[in-house]
Amino acid sequence: VRFIILGAALLMAAAAGQPDDLRRTVNDYTAQHQQAIVDELTTLLAIPNVAADTPNIRRNAEHLQRLLTKHGWHADILETAGNPLVFAETPLQPSLPVVLFYAHYDGQPVDVKKWTQGDPWEPVTRGAGSETRIYARSASDDKAPIVALLAANDALQAAGLARRVNVKLILDGEEEASSPSLVPAIARYKDRLRADLMVILDGPGHPSGRPTIAYGARGIATVDLTVYGPKSGIHSGNYGNWIPNPAMRLATLIASMKDDTGRVTVPGYYDAVPALSADERAMLDAVPDESARMLSAFGVAAPEQAFPKLQYALQYPTLNVRGMVSSFVGENARTIIPDRATAALDIRLVKETKADDLIAKLRTHVERQGYHLVDADPDDVARATHPKLARLRLNGPILSAFRTAVDEPRARAVVAALTQVFGQPPVQLRTLGGTVPIAPFIDALGCPALLMPIVNFDNNQHEENENLRLASFFDGIVTIAAVLRQ
Amino acid sequence: VRFIILGAALLMAAAAGQPDDLRRTVNDYTAQHQQAIVDELTTLLAIPNVAADTPNIRRNAEHLQRLLTKHGWHADILETAGNPLVFAETPLQPSLPVVLFYAHYDGQPVDVKKWTQGDPWEPVTRGAGSETRIYARSASDDKAPIVALLAANDALQAAGLARRVNVKLILDGEEEASSPSLVPAIARYKDRLRADLMVILDGPGHPSGRPTIAYGARGIATVDLTVYGPKSGIHSGNYGNWIPNPAMRLATLIASMKDDTGRVTVPGYYDAVPALSADERAMLDAVPDESARMLSAFGVAAPEQAFPKLQYALQYPTLNVRGMVSSFVGENARTIIPDRATAALDIRLVKETKADDLIAKLRTHVERQGYHLVDADPDDVARATHPKLARLRLNGPILSAFRTAVDEPRARAVVAALTQVFGQPPVQLRTLGGTVPIAPFIDALGCPALLMPIVNFDNNQHEENENLRLASFFDGIVTIAAVLRQ
Repeated sequence: VRFIILGAALLMAAAAGQPDDLRRTVNDYTAQHQQAIVDELTTLLAIPNVAADTPNIRRNAEHLQRLLTKHGWHADILETAGNPLVFAETPLQPSLPVVLFYAHYDGQPVDVKKWTQGDPWEPVTRGAGSETRIYARSASDDKAPIVALLAANDALQAAGLARRVNVKLILDGEEEASSPSLVPAIARYKDRLRADLMVILDGPGHPSGRPTIAYGARGIATVDLTVYGPKSGIHSGNYGNWIPNPAMRLATLIASMKDDTGRVTVPGYYDAVPALSADERAMLDAVPDESARMLSAFGVAAPEQAFPKLQYALQYPTLNVRGMVSSFVGENARTIIPDRATAALDIRLVKETKADDLIAKLRTHVERQGYHLVDADPDDVARATHPKLARLRLNGPILSAFRTAVDEPRARAVVAALTQVFGQPPVQLRTLGGTVPIAPFIDALGCPALLMPIVNFDNNQHEENENLRLASFFDGIVTIAAVLRQ
Repeated sequence: VRFIILGAALLMAAAAGQPDDLRRTVNDYTAQHQQAIVDELTTLLAIPNVAADTPNIRRNAEHLQRLLTKHGWHADILETAGNPLVFAETPLQPSLPVVLFYAHYDGQPVDVKKWTQGDPWEPVTRGAGSETRIYARSASDDKAPIVALLAANDALQAAGLARRVNVKLILDGEEEASSPSLVPAIARYKDRLRADLMVILDGPGHPSGRPTIAYGARGIATVDLTVYGPKSGIHSGNYGNWIPNPAMRLATLIASMKDDTGRVTVPGYYDAVPALSADERAMLDAVPDESARMLSAFGVAAPEQAFPKLQYALQYPTLNVRGMVSSFVGENARTIIPDRATAALDIRLVKETKADDLIAKLRTHVERQGYHLVDADPDDVARATHPKLARLRLNGPILSAFRTAVDEPRARAVVAALTQVFGQPPVQLRTLGGTVPIAPFIDALGCPALLMPIVNFDNNQHEENENLRLASFFDGIVTIAAVLRQ
């Protein structure tokens, strides 16, 4: 109700000629230049861009450099140990703050057979009116935001409206391969990347279609928990009821980690998470509630009850069983007591919960259930000594969470600008539930960051028939223009 | 201690010339005819015998018919819908009870690469003295008992000792393929198979090397328990802490089925199992305790505590997790909330616990944990209606348990004969933990049955380098002779 009133108030202001000016200005520009903008995008989409396809990645980078230059940006290719970065900036005004935009020009691998159009790098336009869409790999993820940024800047220039921020742009060529060269590149290019705010143009917008910003994203650590049984699988008839079953024990151990509401019962698991302030709660409550639609789409009657509202659930670390295996089920099942059982767990982190601390608490919890923890498959001595043997192993790197303070002045300026232009506040997500590989880059740069997804939520990202809804794209150009005019 | 005294008493009797006569008589015979007996066995072992190898199966059957005839048995090939049975009998004396021996002439498939000798059907003798062994497929499982029975009968005849039972023999050609033609054959050949006691010559003897009989074996039913999550795996970051995780729920459900001692907590699970009598307990306690050796071999520090002694554990039905799978662990693991989690369970049955009853109790237990049970993957309506969805599915046929009463007179006569010949009672197992596919055949024949395994316990049954320890084999000939002279 609050937003309806607020919206109405701003619409009245809009009628008075104030907040909507920029929106109208940019929309007029894109309406006039629609064909040129779409052509620029489809030309870019026609260059294959799987991160491992080095020659085509280079073609993308060079094409982008030319495109940026043509639009009046100073553009360079920054070499790295992997795929090149493309860096660009507009002429800097020392008095203005610097916004560093991030996007990526590489895309997910494709399964050509699944694409209706055949070649995912021959863009096709289908649909009509507000549902006109361009189908191609990276149409939404993540080439459209690059072209949108160029168009937003052009629209302001064409209208004689000065930017109120300096603009830098960094384009990653390895995002879909976890951006291995991005953080190392900082050491080499730190001065050029310096900024007051980073804006990440990536990901799908909110289903409501309203402008969306996110202040952060959860991090992740993955661990494997293995409970050991006999040295090899043994006959379940000869020894059933006598030799302990590691799958049963793993089940009991996993079950001990959460209560029936889904709340983690590992002592201290949530200790580091600060209580939400009234403002924070108001922000979470203001996010449009899509839960009925989501539950229906997933075929789930009811969410867990520990955090029954999704936006609240995302503010806490998780303990998720992403996989669980002991011997076989189905055709290959054998009537044995298995030799081991493993659960693959993922722990989504929030900014205040450090992976090391949560894993240490998990270890302590497992030990308190009577387990002796080993660092490798147990030897005969360990087997003869400890009735309960388990291993908790951290996999791969920990990806950190990030979250920009909601009261960060640069973030407030963006929200104010979007509120003014669109007549209502953007959808503001305190944190995304998922993990963005760019988090270590944000950490390393050390400036506040916002995620600003501008493409349609139903873009089939990472899958076949990835698409961009043009109406969302043109709205996104307005959104970016608002940031430039904040 | 009791057995040491008993053994000493009998050894004194043996010194007096009484109980050991038969043992010496048979041992003298086999010592004299050792080469011929071993040649008969190796000739038989040289015929490949995988159940699916129809031409060689037929060669086995015809060879066995000739062999039995040569030894004075009346032998026939009994055709079935599958592989032929070989049936034989000695001339019947109407006044004597009939013992029907069962063995099988088919063997497990082979992985030739793993066999030291190359061809598993080219028998090889290795080792020396009491550790001389013949290596070949079916050396122990289950061709040796066939040749042992012939030799035992020949030894009695050579010594002029009349059999005190009539002897029939049925040889199965599909045991390793679950004996599909055996029960149907009864309808056709019931009169010929009629007997007062069935003795199953199969399986490995007790590690102590003492003669072994078992009165029964557990049955088995296998069920799959699936807990459903979202329709397909969904992003564990975007929805973790909110959409319920089926692997976690399966773990909790499985964990609810047993306590920490390994005792099944599904209400009524053990209700049908009668209390053990003092005699039965004495019998279980008399089985030599091999637990330290077993635990060491399996690399397990301690057994479950619900039934800490193995022989007691085998008297109860099990609820064993033979496999458990949800999505993936390891390289293929993905950070998702899986769409489902399945546990493959096997339930070992004892004679008094019927599979239908245990499964019904399991269903009720699952429902009491809040689950709605479906008979197939749930549709959208079921998904929208029930927060907790699971499926409990019976796989394949139920194999029944069997157990001959310990006080069955025919069984007592066998025990008395073995006690007399060997100077101490045989190892008597109230029930084997595993399941024998012959149980439905025993049921259908309707006569009491004993399992009498005569080969070495370490014969590598079903695996590469299957072998027969000749010393055990010759002891087994004495054991069978004792049954014929009971």
